[in-house]
Amino acid sequence: MNIEEIIEKKRDGFELNRDEIHFFVKGYVDNKIPDYQASALLMAIYIRGMNKKEIGILTDEMRVSGEVWDLSSIPGLKLDKHSTGGVGDKVSLVLGPMVASCGGKLAKMSGRGLGHTGGTLDKLESIPNFDIYENYEEFKEQIDKIGMAIIGQDSKIDPADKKLYALRDVTGTVSSIPLIASSIMSKKLASGADCILLDVKYGSGAFMKTIEDAKKLAQTMVDIGKELNKDVRAEITDMDQPLGFAVGNNLEVKEVINTLKGNGPKDLIELCLSSGSIMLQQGKIFDNEEDARKALIENINNGKAFEKFKEFVKTQKGDVSYIEHPEKFPVAKNIIEVYSNKSGFVNKINALAIGKGSMELGGGREKLDDIIDMSAGIVLNKKIGDEVKEGELLATLYTNKENYEKVKEDVLNAFLIDNVFDESNISKKILID
Amino acid sequence: MNIEEIIEKKRDGFELNRDEIHFFVKGYVDNKIPDYQASALLMAIYIRGMNKKEIGILTDEMRVSGEVWDLSSIPGLKLDKHSTGGVGDKVSLVLGPMVASCGGKLAKMSGRGLGHTGGTLDKLESIPNFDIYENYEEFKEQIDKIGMAIIGQDSKIDPADKKLYALRDVTGTVSSIPLIASSIMSKKLASGADCILLDVKYGSGAFMKTIEDAKKLAQTMVDIGKELNKDVRAEITDMDQPLGFAVGNNLEVKEVINTLKGNGPKDLIELCLSSGSIMLQQGKIFDNEEDARKALIENINNGKAFEKFKEFVKTQKGDVSYIEHPEKFPVAKNIIEVYSNKSGFVNKINALAIGKGSMELGGGREKLDDIIDMSAGIVLNKKIGDEVKEGELLATLYTNKENYEKVKEDVLNAFLIDNVFDESNISKKILID
Repeated sequence: MNIEEIIEKKRDGFELNRDEIHFFVKGYVDNKIPDYQASALLMAIYIRGMNKKEIGILTDEMRVSGEVWDLSSIPGLKLDKHSTGGVGDKVSLVLGPMVASCGGKLAKMSGRGLGHTGGTLDKLESIPNFDIYENYEEFKEQIDKIGMAIIGQDSKIDPADKKLYALRDVTGTVSSIPLIASSIMSKKLASGADCILLDVKYGSGAFMKTIEDAKKLAQTMVDIGKELNKDVRAEITDMDQPLGFAVGNNLEVKEVINTLKGNGPKDLIELCLSSGSIMLQQGKIFDNEEDARKALIENINNGKAFEKFKEFVKTQKGDVSYIEHPEKFPVAKNIIEVYSNKSGFVNKINALAIGKGSMELGGGREKLDDIIDMSAGIVLNKKIGDEVKEGELLATLYTNKENYEKVKEDVLNAFLIDNVFDESNISKKILID
Repeated sequence: MNIEEIIEKKRDGFELNRDEIHFFVKGYVDNKIPDYQASALLMAIYIRGMNKKEIGILTDEMRVSGEVWDLSSIPGLKLDKHSTGGVGDKVSLVLGPMVASCGGKLAKMSGRGLGHTGGTLDKLESIPNFDIYENYEEFKEQIDKIGMAIIGQDSKIDPADKKLYALRDVTGTVSSIPLIASSIMSKKLASGADCILLDVKYGSGAFMKTIEDAKKLAQTMVDIGKELNKDVRAEITDMDQPLGFAVGNNLEVKEVINTLKGNGPKDLIELCLSSGSIMLQQGKIFDNEEDARKALIENINNGKAFEKFKEFVKTQKGDVSYIEHPEKFPVAKNIIEVYSNKSGFVNKINALAIGKGSMELGGGREKLDDIIDMSAGIVLNKKIGDEVKEGELLATLYTNKENYEKVKEDVLNAFLIDNVFDESNISKKILID
């Protein structure tokens, strides 16, 4: 077998078999296949596509390209969730403690933010001393002990994905559904969970711009689960406005604390209840949505979810006094209020513009090695459907930078305010399982 | 401008403009664009194609990627010819002296053989001391003085093609008409001729397997000529059997000598007359085919073409005594005769098998750095349309190797002998201008 023949086969639109996909993934990870051959094959895959069987095999070969973690020694089904990323998406931090407090076992590796999207690890690290350690034994022990762990991705997990992603990033081969799906799923499957819930986002602030593309990606990942005998389900949710009010690392953690205390934004708590009830059913803690939802709401109301969050932070060495006294979190030097210049109803909020604005205020990374200002970001005061009067507060910017005038203007322009509210702007949600 | 955007544009099937193609070719030659990005773009071009305008621009940008030779100081139109390569294709060696003896100016850079196809430079170097020098001043001087020169390709000419071809060779992007056409034409145009005649071969021994593909490639190259205001014409000729009888370097030179003395194989002399008369019209030596043909035949009969060949060999430092006494050429140690095992008519001769056989006997290169045995090869005794009796000689093998049994069998099997002759096996020729 040689790589040229494999490239030619896919170039001409034919299906690749397991031997060929194995030869490519293994050869690439072992540095036997050079980048220039891998990128030619990636482009051929991008344009010619892959069928379900090929995507399943590609995912599986990437999964076994490095360490595969085994969590079977922990009693019960281990649950994982993954969001394709958005603006203000702090769901994992709320959902994890909610599910774990109801008896679910959350085993999750997270990533960092880049560009307009935030990352769970960055948010966690805004809590002083929080440790996102990457260690198999500790991970297992913690899940067994407290029912949840959210850690960084060990570099020994799925090296094929790391190498392929870096190459795709510079060769115009990122936005391919077979390649995106196998990238996400291979990592998730290698980290050992039995069940995976995916939150595939669409809209201005998401990677998938249309609901159709989001559906295709979600279906592809659910199909991978079927090919590989894993319980994979997907929610398709909109990212046409930021999730909740807060965007930016410690601003979001403060919102997480409020939400776990029962004072969360409506859209955030609804998504956590919906995702949480699916996960509790996947984990066979409950056999129907109603009971699962009831339990999740109860554990918000009785404080158990909040206690679980504190236990989680403490176990990962975070300073719990910040969770108990959120006023301890550093506040940015400059606080700038953005007021509406007209009256009406908020019909849209450009999530991409808000995400970029937060990044420009210091709350995100433009390049991989940028350093984040944990206190920077944007807090919305109005969301889609809200009535606004001229001169009323729309949003508040937090930054230690001085050149915030452009962001202020961008945030104002991100709000589409009209005399009437178009009901079609209300968010939609689809479940694929 | 950045290369990722250019890759994405072609990936999505859009036309690239001059700035974008220039950015790619220049950046790649200057090592600013890495191989892995170039190969992704090549694959996108392979699958999505390029229109006439893009191919013209790509050719032109490759042409100017290195030195561009100017032959305008030599009086008259300078002529070049190029064959896409075949088995036993010694046309340039016959045609060059024929055309030059009639007043045409042949300015040709040639290549080496690889795999089953031979190369003009290798054939010339079977003449002791023959110098395929790569030098602009000498080239100009020689054409002016004797009317012809065939030399090696200067490495300063078209570096883009060299780099791109090496990359295409290992990334499954060789057999793309826009990439083949721009590769051939950019080199030809950089070496300074005013008129180019292309011989696009199709059939078992050619790069293009079907007449349809050959037509497409020929039309694409003629169109490049139109885009760049050059007189480019193309003949499409079959390579369903080797050209002439001899395959292998000094065996072919001996056939060239016979042909220039008026004793050539019918198919070879006919192709030289047809190509030669087009070139003499391109060079405005004659304004019609009939007169051109008459002059070419006359110069074979009166010995002027053969004298021109000797003058050419002498000018390039070759030992003319070998041309005058071809019996001086070394003869291989083992001479193996292949006899027919049935009676009938030769309907086909697998040119690929004959070319590979010659290579395996030592007459060709499997890898770029293999050393050629100038005396090795195959001489056919029968061609398509000939009647054969069982036990009659079909071909003779020449080799200094001892393990020739497999080649002997392959050569026997290369002849398709049937009771009747299928007239559709007679070769066809098309002119595109």
